[in-house]
Amino acid sequence: MKQLIDQNWLQEHNAKQEAAVISDYNALAEKLERSGIKIDTILEQAKQFTVAVPSWGVGTGGTRFARFPGKGEPRNIFEKLDDCSVIQLLSQATPAVSLHIPWDRPKDPSELRQYAEQYGLHFDAMNSNTFQDQIGQEESYKFGSLTHTNKAVREQAIAHNIDVVELGQKLGSKALTVWVGDGSNFPGQQHFKNSFTHYLDSIKAVYNSLPDDWNMLLEHKIFEPAFYSTVIQDWGSSYLAAKETGERCLSLVDLGHHAPNVNIEMIVSRLAQFGKLGGFHFNDSKYGDDDLDSGSINPYQLFLIFNELTDIRVQDPSYSPFYMLDQSHNVTDPVESLMYSAAEVQRAFVKSLLVDRNALTQYQEANDAMMAQASLKQAYNLDVEPILQMARLQAGGAIDPVSCYRASGYRAAVAKARPADPNKTGSGIV
Amino acid sequence: MKQLIDQNWLQEHNAKQEAAVISDYNALAEKLERSGIKIDTILEQAKQFTVAVPSWGVGTGGTRFARFPGKGEPRNIFEKLDDCSVIQLLSQATPAVSLHIPWDRPKDPSELRQYAEQYGLHFDAMNSNTFQDQIGQEESYKFGSLTHTNKAVREQAIAHNIDVVELGQKLGSKALTVWVGDGSNFPGQQHFKNSFTHYLDSIKAVYNSLPDDWNMLLEHKIFEPAFYSTVIQDWGSSYLAAKETGERCLSLVDLGHHAPNVNIEMIVSRLAQFGKLGGFHFNDSKYGDDDLDSGSINPYQLFLIFNELTDIRVQDPSYSPFYMLDQSHNVTDPVESLMYSAAEVQRAFVKSLLVDRNALTQYQEANDAMMAQASLKQAYNLDVEPILQMARLQAGGAIDPVSCYRASGYRAAVAKARPADPNKTGSGIV
Amino acid sequence: MKQLIDQNWLQEHNAKQEAAVISDYNALAEKLERSGIKIDTILEQAKQFTVAVPSWGVGTGGTRFARFPGKGEPRNIFEKLDDCSVIQLLSQATPAVSLHIPWDRPKDPSELRQYAEQYGLHFDAMNSNTFQDQIGQEESYKFGSLTHTNKAVREQAIAHNIDVVELGQKLGSKALTVWVGDGSNFPGQQHFKNSFTHYLDSIKAVYNSLPDDWNMLLEHKIFEPAFYSTVIQDWGSSYLAAKETGERCLSLVDLGHHAPNVNIEMIVSRLAQFGKLGGFHFNDSKYGDDDLDSGSINPYQLFLIFNELTDIRVQDPSYSPFYMLDQSHNVTDPVESLMYSAAEVQRAFVKSLLVDRNALTQYQEANDAMMAQASLKQAYNLDVEPILQMARLQAGGAIDPVSCYRASGYRAAVAKARPADPNKTGSGIV
Amino acid sequence: MKQLIDQNWLQEHNAKQEAAVISDYNALAEKLERSGIKIDTILEQAKQFTVAVPSWGVGTGGTRFARFPGKGEPRNIFEKLDDCSVIQLLSQATPAVSLHIPWDRPKDPSELRQYAEQYGLHFDAMNSNTFQDQIGQEESYKFGSLTHTNKAVREQAIAHNIDVVELGQKLGSKALTVWVGDGSNFPGQQHFKNSFTHYLDSIKAVYNSLPDDWNMLLEHKIFEPAFYSTVIQDWGSSYLAAKETGERCLSLVDLGHHAPNVNIEMIVSRLAQFGKLGGFHFNDSKYGDDDLDSGSINPYQLFLIFNELTDIRVQDPSYSPFYMLDQSHNVTDPVESLMYSAAEVQRAFVKSLLVDRNALTQYQEANDAMMAQASLKQAYNLDVEPILQMARLQAGGAIDPVSCYRASGYRAAVAKARPADPNKTGSGIV
Repeated sequence: MKQLIDQNWLQEHNAKQEAAVISDYNALAEKLERSGIKIDTILEQAKQFTVAVPSWGVGTGGTRFARFPGKGEPRNIFEKLDDCSVIQLLSQATPAVSLHIPWDRPKDPSELRQYAEQYGLHFDAMNSNTFQDQIGQEESYKFGSLTHTNKAVREQAIAHNIDVVELGQKLGSKALTVWVGDGSNFPGQQHFKNSFTHYLDSIKAVYNSLPDDWNMLLEHKIFEPAFYSTVIQDWGSSYLAAKETGERCLSLVDLGHHAPNVNIEMIVSRLAQFGKLGGFHFNDSKYGDDDLDSGSINPYQLFLIFNELTDIRVQDPSYSPFYMLDQSHNVTDPVESLMYSAAEVQRAFVKSLLVDRNALTQYQEANDAMMAQASLKQAYNLDVEPILQMARLQAGGAIDPVSCYRASGYRAAVAKARPADPNKTGSGIV
Repeated sequence: MKQLIDQNWLQEHNAKQEAAVISDYNALAEKLERSGIKIDTILEQAKQFTVAVPSWGVGTGGTRFARFPGKGEPRNIFEKLDDCSVIQLLSQATPAVSLHIPWDRPKDPSELRQYAEQYGLHFDAMNSNTFQDQIGQEESYKFGSLTHTNKAVREQAIAHNIDVVELGQKLGSKALTVWVGDGSNFPGQQHFKNSFTHYLDSIKAVYNSLPDDWNMLLEHKIFEPAFYSTVIQDWGSSYLAAKETGERCLSLVDLGHHAPNVNIEMIVSRLAQFGKLGGFHFNDSKYGDDDLDSGSINPYQLFLIFNELTDIRVQDPSYSPFYMLDQSHNVTDPVESLMYSAAEVQRAFVKSLLVDRNALTQYQEANDAMMAQASLKQAYNLDVEPILQMARLQAGGAIDPVSCYRASGYRAAVAKARPADPNKTGSGIV
Repeated sequence: MKQLIDQNWLQEHNAKQEAAVISDYNALAEKLERSGIKIDTILEQAKQFTVAVPSWGVGTGGTRFARFPGKGEPRNIFEKLDDCSVIQLLSQATPAVSLHIPWDRPKDPSELRQYAEQYGLHFDAMNSNTFQDQIGQEESYKFGSLTHTNKAVREQAIAHNIDVVELGQKLGSKALTVWVGDGSNFPGQQHFKNSFTHYLDSIKAVYNSLPDDWNMLLEHKIFEPAFYSTVIQDWGSSYLAAKETGERCLSLVDLGHHAPNVNIEMIVSRLAQFGKLGGFHFNDSKYGDDDLDSGSINPYQLFLIFNELTDIRVQDPSYSPFYMLDQSHNVTDPVESLMYSAAEVQRAFVKSLLVDRNALTQYQEANDAMMAQASLKQAYNLDVEPILQMARLQAGGAIDPVSCYRASGYRAAVAKARPADPNKTGSGIV
Repeated sequence: MKQLIDQNWLQEHNAKQEAAVISDYNALAEKLERSGIKIDTILEQAKQFTVAVPSWGVGTGGTRFARFPGKGEPRNIFEKLDDCSVIQLLSQATPAVSLHIPWDRPKDPSELRQYAEQYGLHFDAMNSNTFQDQIGQEESYKFGSLTHTNKAVREQAIAHNIDVVELGQKLGSKALTVWVGDGSNFPGQQHFKNSFTHYLDSIKAVYNSLPDDWNMLLEHKIFEPAFYSTVIQDWGSSYLAAKETGERCLSLVDLGHHAPNVNIEMIVSRLAQFGKLGGFHFNDSKYGDDDLDSGSINPYQLFLIFNELTDIRVQDPSYSPFYMLDQSHNVTDPVESLMYSAAEVQRAFVKSLLVDRNALTQYQEANDAMMAQASLKQAYNLDVEPILQMARLQAGGAIDPVSCYRASGYRAAVAKARPADPNKTGSGIV
């Protein structure tokens, strides 16, 4: 399979909307010009912006209660890449894919790499998996993996992570994301200090096998699958582990992994200040780790996070954390959600570029709370859709990815090509 | 005192920004036209939109730890109305003031009413106060008011509420808002059922004294000042009380009075469906009853609430709940915050008008979650600032209320006219 | 299979601990006597206390990430009843089992009923399931069941519930518990009012088919599997639905289904005051619907809930809500967890009987917060283990159910008799 | 004033209850003996246990809405010490008082020290106050203190802290607790990184003036008085600041200062593991920083915290963090609350000593979650009241401090001696 949606057809589809985009873009250009902002500079940055797509995100997600599969779900990593190529073609913001091992383990890594490259795709951070048992696995992760009381289990988990790094090297990846669900469901079940000590030892063992140009990203999470305590429960534990482990060991922030009410943009700032902000899993949430589409619940929070990131990059333009989407698409077509979400993240990024930082700094220094907040809102309230549309248009993507995707008939085509397994039900596991 | 900011000066101030406003307005008009929306219809509704200002909001707020007074704070209800008149003059969205008794009790109600009317102001819902003891008061509210175990205390609280209604009649108000902090700080301190029964009896006694054209609004709150249990802790208890009491007894929703993560727009829908949604206290919050400026933390949530309200008004155009700001301005000039917040509420309202409801309904019926959410975002992502600016301009207000207010020198003038009491410190009460 | 643990062996096992139990019991009797409490009265009530066991609770639970099966898991409803019989034999507090349909649907209901009766077991509330799709099912519940926009789906869900009632009649059950996960993952996805209206219509249709001596229990939950909105999200919506539907339609309170910080014991009181408290799903939680073992995280909260229930029963001794355990046992032997949890619930119940209610009432009336809370703590701080042990001993159960169970070798025996399916992995569905 | 309650009278009061205490104590001794625990060892440790009392805690607290003063409130630090002496006399667990400056600043420190010593009292950690403005103060803390953008404000705040340390040296204190409310109410108001950098610089300046045998304790808090962001918002920021500052700079954990659902006992473990756990402010909470009486809402959580502390002390018997009560007594007599709370903290401590740690370790190593949790519950479910009573009795305190205090007539006596200021109302500051 090569290009799944025809480029010519795509251009024709765009053509109908082009005049409106240009008109809106020019009106916005004029408006920004009045504030001394050249829209082309912003457009250029919008075009450079990318966020990785999770391989597991192109299948339908679910809860412990049930999974309701969609049509034409990809059955292997190659079909997943087919879907990812469509997302990248239309959104022009997602050239990288983040793999999950063993789910995506290829027989022949070079074949997989070539398959991706024909689509112009490459591989972002690799994800290891020690929160599930695989058939034939020696030791069980029921009571933990990198932090297990039993050394044999820890060693198996370490070996798996090292294995994922080796695979990732063959695929051209440059980072390993480590998330463990290790923790406990009862007070007393786990010795907090011993568990964390085991974690540190295990992480260091993995880190020692890391190539020099790789980063290791530690992902924290307050709860689930452990419901009383989680070993890497917050940014404090994540920071300590990254600090203890080494320079290229960094913290990864998933937007849905915090306690209620926590100020995430402040955590972003703290980790960056101490040199430990390595990357993001973007999604949104209202209650827990809901893995909803990025910006779907609280788009202002997403903007505030990018406001921090842009502020950091003003000081250090070379700063470049890993950006990944990590969402569970239970009620939408995953391709649509990932395209729409990539654009939402891009929207927050673009708006953050429009903040008048000199003015903001002066308001902050003068404790002019009203105008400081107003200068953020001034940027946030702008409608930057024309910039996003123009960026996609000029890059060869779709002005409106979702409507274009629907018009393409892609889902119906893969639904035929990928018949569902009639023996599989969507039953959860409660 | 009559008009505190000169109309001619205001027009001159506006004149500098007018060309830009017209240009932006026309560009937006063209864009909306493409979607079949006539901007003038929206403008007209924007101009009709009003939200009441709280008399207590024009003074600087504080916490139990401290209050840091601003300059030129109003020392009585007349000076408060002076400030409110400036807010209304510049924002043109706040013609009504909500009073708090006994704080605002006038010696001569008709004098106060005339004073307001010369500014074109009138009085919104009256607020009673049984969460503080007043000097010379017979019974203490330390352990409750309308729900106190002692009948004499309950009767004093009932009498106070009736008194506030009588005062409100003289002032032209049409509603009484009842918020009580009654509750407990310890398990066991209060008998839940008895307290609620007392509440129902007390509320009915007040309701019986209500004029036929008045509404009574019951305000719930999950916690503070009571920290273990609160008698009217959520919309469930509020609904039950309103239902038991009578047709014109309704529930009032304060955006900051809910448990973490609660879906407030859904509560709005439920109360409306069962005929009990009476009004709002607008503000924003990140943690508890933070009383932050409306839309300053989660503007999308504010939009979603207005999305419900607009949906309700499509079914019943006569539906008209009470809209009030209820904020505590600890670090800003209260006049600025109230003008800015009124505009933020208006912004959410205007955006909600731009939702394509026919399309939304079809997406909902078809369970097209992607396009349903996208149709909300399509409206939300629009920049409606030109409509708000034009509405103010045409109504005789300021295009940019805050900058205009600052240029006017109003705060410096009242700072002179209203010297601070040197004996008063801002010490809190921890 | 008849009795799985030998009665004689059990008596011998108890014999070793009997002297200590009697000694502790007598010491406690003397202590209580000083406060005017006769321990035998309490013992008698402890022996009468029962809580139903969930059929699904005897299998190992899991999360969306993984399930790690235990050994000897029951493979059908008969094996589940075998496990339940052991729980009842040793704990002597769980004579009833709550079934989940279709999971537990028997070919021959009378055979199942007889199988239960030989163990002295009977059937508590029936649970319907419209949160999963079953193989061969006509309509999908992906976008809702009783509240779906499509009438055909709603009718299918209604028919299923009616079917469950009919089955339950044959099994001797007297109640139907209805929990639906219906809701939405995106703002805009669902029309709140329409969804609730559909719910009311559907529920009424089920209610109309209910036998006269049955109750219908509506279970609310703030989130999961829906992550933006849930149709029956809290006790307010639950109450409204129960109220609209009919006298024997009641609300069921699951301890883990509330927003953070919510005062659950107060909800218990409110629902009871308005005649709508129908029953409980007992469990514990720290974050969300964690389904942890009852009393394992916050035992004082469990006591406070029983404090309300005992208070209600003082007024109305005939009041008898449904008590069920609803837990997910991910890291323990489910039989052990259910026995231990039943005892924890019983412990909270027994302690609530020891509260000096006359004193408490006087303290409450006098607003003596210190002594009111102290009178609860006085009961709570007592060690009532000797009463629980004596109750089990006298009823023919085990003094220490868990150690007795381990000594019995039951798990090893069923592990042999119920070999695991090697094709099934514990993979989650993320 | 010397001894305010007569020792002989106290002994007579105790005499009536003594027989019962001895009987209960012996029964418990016998029971513990069966588990190999010698009750006298536990009793000895109970008698050694102390927790400091906050000077501000003996006055009635309040909220931003109101304060309802009690009778006989202490009007100065000497009267506060009178009250503290009663607390210590009856509870025999609170020989130290924690002062708050400038509230408690004495004219003559040596006079104050002698006054305390005649009661057998000494001074625990000193508390600085830069969250309020004092009359005559040069710079305002409205927009921050140690983190203010203006260097002059930061220097004033630093000087105040150094001043408090100097005063503390004269009083025999050995620690400074630093809590600042610094933060922001609006996104954008404050530059996160700059604020934290200012904090670090300021803290280091204070630390440099610290005597060699002093500790500095940094107290974090998620929100209030700042409602969008707080500079030292959680243990992560607290740890970083302590780590950057120096060896004797440690973190202090206040039980009410965390986000909802957060596992506090785990934070205790993390801070201890990395050498930064300096002390505690004990209280309880259900919603926010409610400052309720210790153990009044979730006593099991308090036990779990002491379970960690005892575990740490098993490894390092010399480990001795600062223990302080920090509560706001809005509805009780503060003396009663502080005595009762000290006993609740002591109860949690004593129960933590009864955990069979060898068994627990084995269960943890074997991942026997059921028995691990049961071994905690086994200790927690014991009634250790006889140990607490015996400890007080033997130390010369009251068997039942609250009833003894009431019988003494102390409150009535000070109510006469300390008439209320009729000009002061309890009005809050909303």
